[in-house]
Amino acid sequence: MIVVFTGGTGGTKLVQGLQQVVAPEVLTVIVNTGDDIEWWGLHVSPDVDSVLYGLSGLLSTERGWGVENDSFRCLEQMKQLGQPSWFSLGDLDLATHLTRTVLLRAGRSLTEATAELARKMGIGPRVLPMSDERVSTMLDTGMGTLTFQEYFVRERHQVEVHRVEFEGVAKARPALGVTESIDAAEAIIFVPSNPVTSIGPILAVPGIRDALRRTKATIAAVSPVIGGAAVSGPAAALMRMMGWPSTIAGVAIAYEDFLDVLIADRADEAEAEHLQSGKLRVLCTNTIMNSRDGKRELARFTLNACATPQSTKP
Amino acid sequence: MIVVFTGGTGGTKLVQGLQQVVAPEVLTVIVNTGDDIEWWGLHVSPDVDSVLYGLSGLLSTERGWGVENDSFRCLEQMKQLGQPSWFSLGDLDLATHLTRTVLLRAGRSLTEATAELARKMGIGPRVLPMSDERVSTMLDTGMGTLTFQEYFVRERHQVEVHRVEFEGVAKARPALGVTESIDAAEAIIFVPSNPVTSIGPILAVPGIRDALRRTKATIAAVSPVIGGAAVSGPAAALMRMMGWPSTIAGVAIAYEDFLDVLIADRADEAEAEHLQSGKLRVLCTNTIMNSRDGKRELARFTLNACATPQSTKP
Repeated sequence: MIVVFTGGTGGTKLVQGLQQVVAPEVLTVIVNTGDDIEWWGLHVSPDVDSVLYGLSGLLSTERGWGVENDSFRCLEQMKQLGQPSWFSLGDLDLATHLTRTVLLRAGRSLTEATAELARKMGIGPRVLPMSDERVSTMLDTGMGTLTFQEYFVRERHQVEVHRVEFEGVAKARPALGVTESIDAAEAIIFVPSNPVTSIGPILAVPGIRDALRRTKATIAAVSPVIGGAAVSGPAAALMRMMGWPSTIAGVAIAYEDFLDVLIADRADEAEAEHLQSGKLRVLCTNTIMNSRDGKRELARFTLNACATPQSTKP
Repeated sequence: MIVVFTGGTGGTKLVQGLQQVVAPEVLTVIVNTGDDIEWWGLHVSPDVDSVLYGLSGLLSTERGWGVENDSFRCLEQMKQLGQPSWFSLGDLDLATHLTRTVLLRAGRSLTEATAELARKMGIGPRVLPMSDERVSTMLDTGMGTLTFQEYFVRERHQVEVHRVEFEGVAKARPALGVTESIDAAEAIIFVPSNPVTSIGPILAVPGIRDALRRTKATIAAVSPVIGGAAVSGPAAALMRMMGWPSTIAGVAIAYEDFLDVLIADRADEAEAEHLQSGKLRVLCTNTIMNSRDGKRELARFTLNACATPQSTKP
């Protein structure tokens, strides 16, 4: 069993890479739902959708989110009708949110709704939301408290963040299958996503971090920062806000209580050597995935790193 | 004040005709909501939408329902996701239902949601749903009990109807403004729509029929049947099911307790002469509205018929 932790849009690339090298039935993807949003009355799970679209081949390669060749006619009409329009839902994309909302209103859990969507999209790997309970990533900023989408999409992450909170997380439980798959995993991989707001909400769900600490699986993370800067998005700024360096050392701190292997970009080879310790192996490779082959190579490299015999686990 | 009672798709043509000859501020349109449907979790008011689209110029002239030049990409994707697809919502059309549903969930009444949509669409005349309460036209058929849309759209009204019931109507109240506008009207016009399922639900709302009986306004109806057959849809079959002739005489029976003027097609001149009585004036003209001019001419004829001094009212 291979378990992947993902969130954000960049992480989906590594999930697509793993899909190329691992049989679907051994792959479980655990997805952040802290930036879920109620939009036009619909339950939108942007990170779950990125994974669903990424694994089904529906994902827009140009945009990196939403559906390839989508149109935005409904959105344009919503504008005419005075509805908010800063969060873009395409006409094809809308079908996902409508279906999810119908399923949730009928009493199905988010896990069940996600499984149904995955099945209809012909997806083999198991896709699990981190929790069926509502957890909302809230950011205290210079503009007041914002939801993640308000911060990320509406304000284009151009406001200063003072604090991040995961509203509702204390009462949330891991979705059915999450801790079970961590317990049963041989390898667990953290995609190169923002450790604060993309992976952070998953780790904040009570029980998940404990499961990661106790699992016998080798746990690897691919760094979302290269040379002290994020490949995309606000990862570096949010890591600094947390008091961590915005370098691979910061990534190591974010996951320090369970991480076995850190995959860094070749650009960080010098720092990687410093960071290497008895507890943490740090390996360097090309982590920019700008092609189908690039995704597959990074996935293969990461899996190989997990499979090497000198595992640090007792 | 001119008040129009409408339902179904055909009736919208006369509403469009009246829009051409009457100032917007004196026109109130009261619309059937008995065939409203919860579809993909959204509140769809097909007859209200026909009026909104008809008055705003958005209406598809080719289809007679929905939005001109609409696309159906979301619908196609909903099919892929295993959702029902026999009721067609276009991508632009969807925006109306999303907006209405958002407004209703926020606690606005159907009347308020309709007014908001009308305002955003730049519509002058007042458009009122018959009631803010949910009334559902249910048909006992050879296939069991069907909602109106199941009967009309899904089964293409090809099943026999034994009985029509307006579920919830006993507890429904006229929407704010409905009886007030009937009381204040100079002329009240019933569009050429099915008197059983398009106009019937409106008349079944407690208080509306009483208001029609007591108003000083002249009340005219344009016949939806010509030569014993409906211009479109199942009006003739449903009138026979009610025990009425499917002729202009049946229309006169449907509205007998308040009707002053019946507008029949020239094809029904012979029967019109028979039907004419001291109580009911029957006038003939061309009632097929297949052009913008045709709509205007029928509207003008109907208004003139209401305005003639030999009103039968005391």
